[in-house]
Amino acid sequence: MQNIKLTIEYCGTNFSGWQIQGKGERTVQQVITNVLEKILKEKVQLIGSGRTDQGVHAQGQIASFKTNSNLTPAVILRAINANLPDDIVIIRAVRAHKTFHAQYSAKNKTYCYTICNQKMKSVLQKKYSYFYPNTLDITAMRSASKILVGKHNFQSFTATNSALKKAGIKKDTVRTIKKLSITKSKKFIKITIEANGFLYKMVRNIVGTLLEVGSGKISKPELKRILLSKNRQCAGPTAPAQGLCLLRVKY
Amino acid sequence: MQNIKLTIEYCGTNFSGWQIQGKGERTVQQVITNVLEKILKEKVQLIGSGRTDQGVHAQGQIASFKTNSNLTPAVILRAINANLPDDIVIIRAVRAHKTFHAQYSAKNKTYCYTICNQKMKSVLQKKYSYFYPNTLDITAMRSASKILVGKHNFQSFTATNSALKKAGIKKDTVRTIKKLSITKSKKFIKITIEANGFLYKMVRNIVGTLLEVGSGKISKPELKRILLSKNRQCAGPTAPAQGLCLLRVKY
Repeated sequence: MQNIKLTIEYCGTNFSGWQIQGKGERTVQQVITNVLEKILKEKVQLIGSGRTDQGVHAQGQIASFKTNSNLTPAVILRAINANLPDDIVIIRAVRAHKTFHAQYSAKNKTYCYTICNQKMKSVLQKKYSYFYPNTLDITAMRSASKILVGKHNFQSFTATNSALKKAGIKKDTVRTIKKLSITKSKKFIKITIEANGFLYKMVRNIVGTLLEVGSGKISKPELKRILLSKNRQCAGPTAPAQGLCLLRVKY
Repeated sequence: MQNIKLTIEYCGTNFSGWQIQGKGERTVQQVITNVLEKILKEKVQLIGSGRTDQGVHAQGQIASFKTNSNLTPAVILRAINANLPDDIVIIRAVRAHKTFHAQYSAKNKTYCYTICNQKMKSVLQKKYSYFYPNTLDITAMRSASKILVGKHNFQSFTATNSALKKAGIKKDTVRTIKKLSITKSKKFIKITIEANGFLYKMVRNIVGTLLEVGSGKISKPELKRILLSKNRQCAGPTAPAQGLCLLRVKY
């Protein structure tokens, strides 16, 4: 039995997210699983490091699966890529320890959110950025964002998962943001966040809130109050999916 | 009579280049002209700074046109963008001097060519880069590229224009490359060239030749001989269109 770890890049535009939906929806996990089962001639349970939402991209999503096949990872890599559609590519396939689990073994994840901040929309990067034409005070955004770094309860920045709520499951909403950087290169602003884990829609809610900081609607002390309120209603809107990309997962 | 100067961004993927073809082909010049004539209710002759080939992108193509309309450039800008498809956007529209001519007044143009240099293709930037998986010696490319900077006869790097040849027209093939830089950021190599003008397919032929330098097939002295040969047969292949983008035109 081999445990194979895959590094995956995908363009999320034409996927209903990562997770298998079971309703004939096109998801990344479904498409890769179908290809793997075709190649390996066995049932495959592909475990991702975590879900990405509809429209979210990935440069370095990690997934793992166990197989009885004797094919080497290099052969599996070539076979998968030859059968995948042109919006997914497996960048690496390596043998992992039998205890490796793409989700539970993950220590850190890094997401990057790209904002196209100019008066006119960008046609070249529109699938990979959120067009935000209003002036932004980057210095204010950088200063306020420091409040979010560290170990906090990020309840204010997560969408309620109605499925879990229905099941009476209360999720731990404490996470540690290790790094948060805001860089600007010409018209593109990139907000890069590294954390030990992310809540549902956490990055997009943080970005939506930081955009309100940048446009002067929320001050730094208000951001602090929003964080402490543990109330999603207090924070800014959810930034759209197309600006978000899962850069890497560390184990 | 107003003379209006437009700054245009377009994704070249679904266009048969800039130039009106007159055979029902979708070109950038045709699409913008149609919109302008609809808005201005008059015949419009839209003059571009130069052609871009099928599949080539632009961040800062310049075009100009004369109109009898009294609409301000700001109103024209909004009206055009509201009517353009989502792979073109007019970034700026300003009133230019009556003698301004987008093609003849151009002093300098800058093109950027993007190479995706990693083992696996990139699905995120595939429309905007040329996937070149082999190892490249960037230092050798940078060193050799210095030969091309300055005023030279670039005959070796231009495709023969059969239409001109048929008409017995011999084009001047001397151009001045003012700057040529090769930068690498993660897996992406960018070759940026600024010149007082470019010959047909000149950037793509230079890039194709520099790739041969980077992969050890052409040495620096050989590149010099290729330049001096004034023979297209001596240079490397034409790099594909999708990696090329017209960054800006200076007047």
